[in-house]
Parts: sequence; C-alpha cells; structure tokens
Amino acid sequence: MSFNSFGRIFTFTTWGESHGPALGVTVDGCPPGVALDESLIQPFLDRRRPGQSRMTTQRQEPDQVRILSGVFQGRTTGTPIQLMIENTDQRSRDYGDIAQAFRPGHADIAYHLKYGIRDYRGGGRSSARETAARVAAGAVARAVLAELAPGLSILGYMVQMGELTLDRSRFDAAEIERNDFFLPDAAAVAEWAEYLSRIRKEQDSIGAAVEVLIRGCPPGLGAPVYAKLDTDLAAAMMSINAVKGVEVGEGMAAAALRGTDNADEIRMGVEGPQFLSNHAGGILGGISTGQDIVVRFAVKPTSSILTPRRTIDAAGREIDLVTKGRHDPCVGIRAVPVAEAMAACVILDQLLLDRAQTGGRRGVIGPGSGGEPV
Amino acid sequence: MSFNSFGRIFTFTTWGESHGPALGVTVDGCPPGVALDESLIQPFLDRRRPGQSRMTTQRQEPDQVRILSGVFQGRTTGTPIQLMIENTDQRSRDYGDIAQAFRPGHADIAYHLKYGIRDYRGGGRSSARETAARVAAGAVARAVLAELAPGLSILGYMVQMGELTLDRSRFDAAEIERNDFFLPDAAAVAEWAEYLSRIRKEQDSIGAAVEVLIRGCPPGLGAPVYAKLDTDLAAAMMSINAVKGVEVGEGMAAAALRGTDNADEIRMGVEGPQFLSNHAGGILGGISTGQDIVVRFAVKPTSSILTPRRTIDAAGREIDLVTKGRHDPCVGIRAVPVAEAMAACVILDQLLLDRAQTGGRRGVIGPGSGGEPV
Amino acid sequence: MSFNSFGRIFTFTTWGESHGPALGVTVDGCPPGVALDESLIQPFLDRRRPGQSRMTTQRQEPDQVRILSGVFQGRTTGTPIQLMIENTDQRSRDYGDIAQAFRPGHADIAYHLKYGIRDYRGGGRSSARETAARVAAGAVARAVLAELAPGLSILGYMVQMGELTLDRSRFDAAEIERNDFFLPDAAAVAEWAEYLSRIRKEQDSIGAAVEVLIRGCPPGLGAPVYAKLDTDLAAAMMSINAVKGVEVGEGMAAAALRGTDNADEIRMGVEGPQFLSNHAGGILGGISTGQDIVVRFAVKPTSSILTPRRTIDAAGREIDLVTKGRHDPCVGIRAVPVAEAMAACVILDQLLLDRAQTGGRRGVIGPGSGGEPV
Amino acid sequence: MSFNSFGRIFTFTTWGESHGPALGVTVDGCPPGVALDESLIQPFLDRRRPGQSRMTTQRQEPDQVRILSGVFQGRTTGTPIQLMIENTDQRSRDYGDIAQAFRPGHADIAYHLKYGIRDYRGGGRSSARETAARVAAGAVARAVLAELAPGLSILGYMVQMGELTLDRSRFDAAEIERNDFFLPDAAAVAEWAEYLSRIRKEQDSIGAAVEVLIRGCPPGLGAPVYAKLDTDLAAAMMSINAVKGVEVGEGMAAAALRGTDNADEIRMGVEGPQFLSNHAGGILGGISTGQDIVVRFAVKPTSSILTPRRTIDAAGREIDLVTKGRHDPCVGIRAVPVAEAMAACVILDQLLLDRAQTGGRRGVIGPGSGGEPV
Repeated sequence: MSFNSFGRIFTFTTWGESHGPALGVTVDGCPPGVALDESLIQPFLDRRRPGQSRMTTQRQEPDQVRILSGVFQGRTTGTPIQLMIENTDQRSRDYGDIAQAFRPGHADIAYHLKYGIRDYRGGGRSSARETAARVAAGAVARAVLAELAPGLSILGYMVQMGELTLDRSRFDAAEIERNDFFLPDAAAVAEWAEYLSRIRKEQDSIGAAVEVLIRGCPPGLGAPVYAKLDTDLAAAMMSINAVKGVEVGEGMAAAALRGTDNADEIRMGVEGPQFLSNHAGGILGGISTGQDIVVRFAVKPTSSILTPRRTIDAAGREIDLVTKGRHDPCVGIRAVPVAEAMAACVILDQLLLDRAQTGGRRGVIGPGSGGEPV
Repeated sequence: MSFNSFGRIFTFTTWGESHGPALGVTVDGCPPGVALDESLIQPFLDRRRPGQSRMTTQRQEPDQVRILSGVFQGRTTGTPIQLMIENTDQRSRDYGDIAQAFRPGHADIAYHLKYGIRDYRGGGRSSARETAARVAAGAVARAVLAELAPGLSILGYMVQMGELTLDRSRFDAAEIERNDFFLPDAAAVAEWAEYLSRIRKEQDSIGAAVEVLIRGCPPGLGAPVYAKLDTDLAAAMMSINAVKGVEVGEGMAAAALRGTDNADEIRMGVEGPQFLSNHAGGILGGISTGQDIVVRFAVKPTSSILTPRRTIDAAGREIDLVTKGRHDPCVGIRAVPVAEAMAACVILDQLLLDRAQTGGRRGVIGPGSGGEPV
Repeated sequence: MSFNSFGRIFTFTTWGESHGPALGVTVDGCPPGVALDESLIQPFLDRRRPGQSRMTTQRQEPDQVRILSGVFQGRTTGTPIQLMIENTDQRSRDYGDIAQAFRPGHADIAYHLKYGIRDYRGGGRSSARETAARVAAGAVARAVLAELAPGLSILGYMVQMGELTLDRSRFDAAEIERNDFFLPDAAAVAEWAEYLSRIRKEQDSIGAAVEVLIRGCPPGLGAPVYAKLDTDLAAAMMSINAVKGVEVGEGMAAAALRGTDNADEIRMGVEGPQFLSNHAGGILGGISTGQDIVVRFAVKPTSSILTPRRTIDAAGREIDLVTKGRHDPCVGIRAVPVAEAMAACVILDQLLLDRAQTGGRRGVIGPGSGGEPV
Repeated sequence: MSFNSFGRIFTFTTWGESHGPALGVTVDGCPPGVALDESLIQPFLDRRRPGQSRMTTQRQEPDQVRILSGVFQGRTTGTPIQLMIENTDQRSRDYGDIAQAFRPGHADIAYHLKYGIRDYRGGGRSSARETAARVAAGAVARAVLAELAPGLSILGYMVQMGELTLDRSRFDAAEIERNDFFLPDAAAVAEWAEYLSRIRKEQDSIGAAVEVLIRGCPPGLGAPVYAKLDTDLAAAMMSINAVKGVEVGEGMAAAALRGTDNADEIRMGVEGPQFLSNHAGGILGGISTGQDIVVRFAVKPTSSILTPRRTIDAAGREIDLVTKGRHDPCVGIRAVPVAEAMAACVILDQLLLDRAQTGGRRGVIGPGSGGEPV
C-alpha cells in the first residue's frame, strides 16, 4: 500500500499541499452503479470548510469539489473516481517567517529531517487541508453504504474541549448540526463559544476530544488478527492531524475495570442477540457484533499560535517564533467531519472485505442451530 | 496485505490456534546477513510464556521455538524465516462447555456470526496464544535493529492494574525484569501481587495499562499521511488481544491542554536539536523526531472468569456461563513483551521503508544549511 | 505485499529451502466452511512429486502434507491455513562443489550478488522444491472453487519439449494423467520418452512449453487496469522457476495478425453470448468473458547439467563446472501441476475480489436491457 | 494494492477516461530532492501523443501535463505527485453506435458483464488514453533513476509489425527517434510505412511486437519468489492494452533449447563477472545480474476497425458493426513509449525495494571472498 493510500478494497489516495494549485483524492475499488454526483459530496465538504464561523480559521476556501472520472450519467462505473478541489485563498506570503524555522509541536522539523526539503507554505503536505480530500472520499463511501447497509448511520460530535466536557445526560443528536462545535447539547453552546473566544484572545489554542458513533453496523465486519475493525479504526483516527489517542468502547478506562463489570451480558431478543451493556464499543475479537460502535479520540491544541515560543531554525540558530497566518484555535472542531469520513471508509472497506471472504453470509443463532451459515 | 500479516517491508504472517498442533510465524523481508539462531529468540518467548508465576494462567507451555527456514550457518539469508512453536499442554476437554456458548465480552459470538464455524478450544484463533508468534517475530526484528540502529532500546512495563497506578517518581527500569508484573518499581510489587491475588480469589479479573518506551530511535521514521509512525504503532497495539485504547505522548490528556503548554520548545544542543519537553511522545506529523517515543495502551479484564455471567448459546437459549479452563486474571501482564515485539516490528519496518524512499539521508540542521540532505 | 506472498484476498505465503528441515505455505483469506483435509491436497502433491519416473529427478520425497491450522472438524474456519511438508531425502553433500561456484544459467550468482549469502544446498530458496508449497495452496483454492464455481475446470498439459510439439488434432484430455509427460496424446508418448532419454544420456537438458486451459470460468473476473486477469496470470506463470515467456490466447503470434482475423465475432446463443473464435484466450480488457481461458508458457532447460560449462567461483577464479546432484532433465514436466495450482489461486483470488467490488452481480444482455445489473 | 495502482514503494495510481474532462496519475513514494518540472515529463508524452503522423489516430490531443502537487521549487518533496492531462479533442458523438453494442475483440462486452455500466465514449477506462498517465509516471521514474542509477538506459523499439520483422543485423539505436515506427533500421522505414498504409486502406489493422532493452541495470534487483524482476516486468507489459504475450531473453523460444546451449557461461572481467551470452535476458532466479535486460511483448491488432464484424448489442440482438471514430491502425507503435515507462517504473520500484532490504549492498566476487557483503 502506498504511503498516501488508505484501505484495502475501497481505497483512497490523497494528494496535494495547502498552498499548491489544488488537492484531491482518487477513490478506487468503488462498487459500480451507485448514484453519485457533486451534490452528494459538497455538503460534507461544506461542514468541514474553514472560514464559516469565528471558531475556525479565517481562510476562505469554497472547497468546490469536481468529479473528474469514474462517474458516468450519474452513476459510478467501478473505475477510479478522481475528486479535485482547487485552492483559491492561499496567502503564502504569511509563511515567509517559517520557511526556515520550525514551529514547536509542529511537523516542520520532522519533515525537514526526513525529506531535507518541504513546502513550508501553510504547512504544505502536513496541513489539515489534506483532510478535505478525506471528507470527499468519505462522502463516496457514504453513498455506497446507503445502498449496501441502509440502516447504518455515522455520527461525530465533540465530547471535550479543554476544561469543558459534554454532559452525556443532555445528549441530543439533533443539536449537532445546529452549532459551530458539533455539540449535541444546545444549552452548552454559549459556554463553549465563550471559552474558545477567551483562548483565542489569549493568543493560545486548545485541545479537544471527538466521539464517533456508528449505529446499525452489520455484525461480522473485521478480519482478525491484523485487519481487525478496531485496528483499522484506530489507524484511521490516529492518521488524522494532531490526534494523540484513540479509544474504542471503554478505552483507556478499561484498565480500571473488573471482568465481572466489563462483561457485556447477552440476552435473546426477538431479532437476535441483545447485549445488556456496551463496554466493548461494538467490537469483540476485532469483529463487529451489531451493537453501536463507539470510537473516541483526542486532538492536541493547534501548534501554530501567536504566543512566542522558543525554537530553532534550519541554520541551528535559537529564535523566538510567533506563527502568523490563519489558524484554528481548536483543530478538534473541524476534525469531526473528518473522523466521520474516515469511519465511513473503514466500515465500507471492511464490508467489502467481508463480502469477499464470506460472501456476507452470517452464522446462525437460533433453535436447532449448530452455527452453520445459511 | 493479507488478514494475518503485519508490516510493509519487514512483514510477518502468524498462523495457528490455541489447541492445534502448533502455531508460528513467517517473517518476510528480513535483511540478509544478520546473526540469528533460536537462542536469540527463545528468551523473549520465555518472558511471555504462561505458567511461570501465580500471576498468569497455569497452562504449562515450554514454547520452544524452531527456525525452519531463512537462516543458514547462523545468519539470515533474506528469504522467509519460519518460526514454529508446538502446542503441548492443550486440555481441550475443559472447553466442552463453551463449544456452543458465547462468553460475554469474548470473541466467541463475533467469530460465530462472521464465520459460522470456529475452533472453540481455548479460544482457537482468538486466543492470546497467537501473541507468542508475534514475540518470535519481534525477536527477529530486534536482532536486525541491533545492527541497523545500535543505540535503540525498547522497554515495556505496566503503569496501571485496576486501582493501582505506577508512581512515576519511583521509576526504575532495572526492576522491570525482576518481578512478575514488569513493574519498574520494586517497592510496589508486593501490593500489586496482593491485589491481584484478591481479584483472583474473588473469581474475577482486572484491566491494565502498559507503556512502551523507545529510546534512541533515529529521526525521520514514518511516512505521512497513511503510514505515519504513530498510525502504525496505534494499529500494532490495537491489534493485540483485549486492547481498547492507545495513546502517544500526552494521549487522551491532550484534549485538555493549551497550545502554549503543549508546544515542545526546541534548543540547539551539541549533537543537534534538543526538545525541552516531550508532550508529543517523540512523533510530529507522523514522523519520529529523535526524542523518546512513548506509547501507552489499555487492556480490558479477561472475559473468561469463574463468576457466572448471563449469556446465550448457539441455539439461542439463555444460560448462565462460568468459564473453566486456565486463564490469566490480568492479561495485561503478558501483553508487555507482546507490545515490545510489535513496537520492534513497527520501528524496523519504518526504518526499512525510510531507507527505500530516502536512502536514510537526513536533512541537515546547522550553519549555512538550507536544509538539503548531504 | 511481502516478497514471498501471492494474491490479494486469497493469499499464500511460501517458505522453506530445498535442504532445510521443511517447507510450507500459509494460506490466508480462505472462505470459511469449506470441506478440507489432507486427502484433498495430497493427490496434487503426488502429481508434482519427484522420483516417480525416469523422466524426473531421482530424489525420493514423499511430500506428505500436514495441515497445522485453519481447519476444524474437516472444514476451513476462515483463519490462516498452514500446510507443512517435511524434507526427508536431502543429500546435501552432493552440493559441496557449488558452495562457492556459480552454475551458468542458474540463480546462484544472482542470489550471491543480492544477498551476499545463500543456502547453496540444492539451490536453497531458488530450488523448484518451493513449488510443492504452491501446489498445496492450489489444492486449497480448488476445494473452494469447487463450491463457488462448480463448473470450472483447470487443465495443464505439455505442448512442446525441445523439437517435439503437440499435434493438437490428436488432443485427448483423458490421456493427460496416463503418462509421465502430462501429454494429451497417447500415441506420442513413446517418442517423447525416447527423446528425453537421449537428452539425458547426452548429459544435457531440454526446454518445454506448457498450456493451461481453464473451462467454465465465470465472466467478469479481473480488475482493470493493474489487476487484470491476464496480468495476474502472466505474473503467476512468470514467477514459476525457469519460465521465460507467457502467452494468453494468440500470444506472441498476435503480432502477425490482422484485425479482421483477430476479432472474435459474437452471436447470441440460448444461454447468452457465443463467441465464434477465441483468439483472445477468454480475456478482453483484462476481464474474463466466459470463454475458455488459454495460457501458455515456456520453461528453459535445466541449468544444472553434467556437461561441463565455463564459469567462475566466489573468489573470481575461472573454472569448469559439472553439476552433480539429482536434477530433472526437463523441468517443464513438473511445471504442469504447478501452473495449474497458480491458475487456481489466481482465479479464486479474482473471484473473491470481484465479489468484494460487485457482489458477483453481472450486467444483463437481453431484450429490454440497458445493461443494468439485476 | 488498489486496482488502478502499480508498484510497491514507487507506486502510481492512474485515473480518468478517454472522453472525461481529464486523466492523470498520482505518483507516490518518490524520493525527495529530485529535480523535476513539466519540461522533464512533456517530451515523453509528446512521443506517445496521437495525431503526429499518418501512422496513428488523428485525434489531436496536446497532452499538456500539469504538476499539481509534490514538487516545490523544482524538486520533489517526497509527497504524492499529481500529474494531470486535460482531454481537449473528444468527439463523443462518434461513439453513439457502440453505446449499446460490443465491438468484437474489444473490452466493451467484458466491462458490460462485470460492471453493468460503462462509459462507452472512446472506450472509457479501457481506452489506450490511460497509457498517457503511465508515460507521465515513467518520466518521473526516469528522473529519479538518472540520480540513483546514472548509467542506466531504457530503450524501446518495434521488432515486428504483421509480416514485417526487424533485421537485427541492421540494428541502429540512433534511428529509433527518427521515424514514426520507433524502428532501429532507417532502411526499412519506407517498407513499414507502405505496409501500414495498405492495411489502413483495406480498413483493417495489424499486430506488432515491441522490445525493451535496459542497459546498465545494477545487479541484485528483484525479490524472489513473488516479486521477481521478470514477474514484475511481465505484469507491467501484460497490463498494457492489447498485449497478449511477454518474453524475457529467449522467451518462448527457450522451449526448444538444450541446457548446454542455454547456459550463459561466465568469465572474470576487469570490472567483475562477464557473461559470454545472454539467453537469460539479464535475469536469473528473478534477480538482475547486471547484463542487459531484454523484454519483448506482442500487441494484438486494434479491434476498432471499419470492416464490418458480426456481433451483438446489449439487448441481445445480432448486428453487423463498423467502428467509426479515430483509431490507430497499429496500436503497437504507440505502445513503445508506454513500455519504456512501465520498465522505468518497475526498475525504480525494485531498486527502492532492494535498498529497503539490503541497503543496496552487494555480495563480493573476488580473491579471498567468501561472498560476504562489504
């Protein structure tokens, strides 16, 4: 698999830099005959798009996506789908200061050491603008999932920003799209907005935690032991810029649990097995069980800040660096649609992978069953 | 990549079930000319081996490894290395009860749904015995790293078990090998032992958290954006049985941090850049910086416990299940050598991958440098 | 994909050297629930086995295969299948002469240059003994194909040995298994045997050409443009030891054809499209059409011969080399079951790949059809 | 690896249809710091470009390539390189006749059966226009090879067109670029031109054979046994549109050779081993030896011809079909630069792969050597 590709059957390969002429993604392995046009992709890009509120970077990018291949008369043909987004609002002159300097906590120095050359403008390849391409790929995955797994939904939302955490007792999915934080709690929005404004005024940035909830996922997805569903989800989330931790179900808190508590007991419901709890987060042995899949991840605070930090330049000189340019005070916010997109791609890829190996047949649970697939 | 393979250049493919005649691993892509024989692999297997203390399962497996290919006159030949471990202490009759029943929190039901058939004896393929093969592959990786990255060390240890957490102010690496918990704090061992004994007597099990510290890793390892070093490490750890969360550096705690705190400031030392802190855990933009790499993960409590839990069987009948057989009360303990092995494989694979793309050349930092590789 | 693996979904990884303790293959991605035991694999190994007639090497290897994993109660479980064959008749002392010398036309010098070390005994990894592992993997593929594509048959046979070529007007498939040459013409067997005896007595060896005929292959297999079915078949055959050319359908003769002749015209039959000729060899645009698939390849003469040839040794000294040991005078003969096995693996892999992307749905040809899949 | 990707380390993924807005290729894994701009790619596209002589299709495509990513200040950055070519001279109305009809010998019916939908305009994805993207990728590979293997040259030329074959005694590499046939024999050009004109006037097309000669290839490239250099070359050539056979060295003729003749004897030259012949075509055991690498392949005649052929349409009706549109009477001609490009990509990929595993160290031949790498 190439360095900039993700997936096994449903694969995507992203390309492009923050301040180059364009960026995009090639989606390969898409099933044929699926209804697709730009109008099914653009809304997802609009959700991730910068410059929409005071909460994100003020860079103004329309992020208009164009389908250049793989779709004919409104349906996918099974050939590679090229999705291109032109960059329009580069202000590369803002970046002269960091051409030869390394922002603390940023990929600058790592790219310099590895490659000896880097497109420093706007972070180049390490910029979160790359995630626009992921969102486009995710929109294609969703269009396919709508046909192959009609009951499935993927919902991302913020659960933490710095000192603030979501009050889960007030969770309301309908609110997520109604505020600038993808926050499922209308009552908390004002407090979050005020908190982030203060951070920004203090020329600082702040970390965040995001959760993705996948409902209606068919059981049987995930291929043990090195293509487990949770392994793929962990890789998918950790590959997003600035992510430092990933959890499934109980996550890190599992370290404190006892086996008697952690066991998700099972009952027999009308439509099949029913779990009485979901410590597992919907995945056992790397395979989906049909329960809700719950993934969480933490995003570190933006490293590009206006407060001066001590660092060095390529010549080895010690300097104090202030990062100009337009940056999100909390990159975690715009990570929400990105995480949803990655989840959609992982689920679809595993669904196709499972279809390859098992034909999608499922083991039977019920009277007289020895467990044979139908 | 096949379902049971890991890695891109230095790859390994594991095979075998808990109660089959043998299990093993094929290591492919190993550099030629590296000194290797069984004596370099066996000690790592001995560390993971069950039945060594009251803290782990009482199954007695010598876990004797045999090299069947890929080594000639004590050196690797560059051809695939087959490492086989015969199973000797299967007591498959213990498992009659779960032949058609699903342990809550266990892979049983997921395998059943996906494949319609499973080797239920000892958990079959989902058993942690598979990790013996990983440890063998990791030993090969270490032998290669000893030549290609001589200053590198990989150290795993427990940082949490249920309510108990490591007091980091008392960290002493030398103690790790001297107790049954891979615990870097001699003074705490008695308390941990007593705690685990109590858990076991209560017919329960307990979760844990493990940390892996990689020192002396060369900068420049990791290929953005979908073969990032932290992405690979996250996938590696999440693929280990019972792992529910993975963290790099600050991990989930990054969600609470401010940018001014999180920035690892840089100074110029005699031998190159010096970081004044390590919130990043040694990885920026998916690429190693030369700092210590710090990875942590949580292991859920063993789901096979003697306390009865409510569940169903393949016929859909509701039952109360007690898991007999011999099980670790805390699987997190034996995950320590497994995690080290996975880390070794990831680092070597990325080192070879980097050697492919850049030839191992590094960008220069210093007077008169524009950053060009030498 | 690792160096010693083949396939994308149905993958196999071979390991082992000619004179090591054992060799084998790990088959991964096999569908679950397929009937499999040693008795379904052994007959294919017996066909390839050396020492059965004067026409092949006199090395006596029982080539007994053991299933070590992935099969439970006589059915595949969807987990990796390990097949091991122990070496029993190594006479490594025969190879002292070539420990530091390079047989002309042999892989000796290439392995030496690449790896700097090689297991010279019996050719080590470059020995055709590796193909026993392929035959075992192919037997698994056939067992799966018997369920997923019941009408499919794969038939290999010799079409040329040195100056002798098959008289296609006398083709009789039933004869193939009745002679030592896999020759579909009973009347020619005596002449072929006499010819090969003469070659051997002259301390020489001879080239050959083999054809594989795949009947009943479903249409739609092959993923343009870099996983085309003919691309995979070409890679599969070229990877067999000593193969120097691969042809599909008309093969190299296509260079002399006109478009009017080469066009395989189509009529509408009762059961679907009928082609009036098969210049294409069953594949168009990299995708199977449902016609017979015809693949041919040439095998060079064995390079290990008793006639002295001029060469050098590792010290750079010029020497005259005679290769002792036991060698096939015509390696092409035993390539027949190997080619069948590779073809089976390619077809199954593509069938699973197609099942992943299209779900196995086929475009419709018939009244009122716009070509939509059902 | 995705369906439309080629390579392991140096990978490329092509996208685009014949009559879509654009086509292109993403090159991933390219070493950083290599000088690259459009002027290094365009000449190769110009060689393949249609409409340049009466010998090829009259479609007029400037095939202007644009670099959209991965290059900064004239050097590669190690990030993915996107190369885009806009389509400008589509005349899609020419293709109304084949919208629902299947050209005999063409991919039409196979795409229809597999995908149930196809972009029929100009052959859509199955069009040879896709090879423009390969040529662009090959130009990048050449730019890298110029730095990593400076003595290496890759030369393609025609050796056969229908009844005409190259007189090898008159081979003159300097002539290849001076005629419309990539023919290394100036004296034969007039005859070839006359022959092809006659074919075209007869509303027919003709097959061809092309040879690629790689000089100065370092020894040690190729990873046995499933990533052999000849395996990769065979896959590369067979993946080119209309190719039906591939040969290395003696190719299919090896079937007629004796071992005494086929052995390429070795002498010790001043600069290392010298082979006295090259039946092997520069590859032994799947690994390059340092000799000239010789690959040949046959291209079938264009299936789109003006002479009516019997076929069917999607509704299953039997029809007589004449293919309008603008087509090459001999697609083999423009396959020459495509084959060179594929060869360049294969060699570079294997060079990087070898650099990963062995670090590029070579086994020693010479006095006192036991063959150890330095």
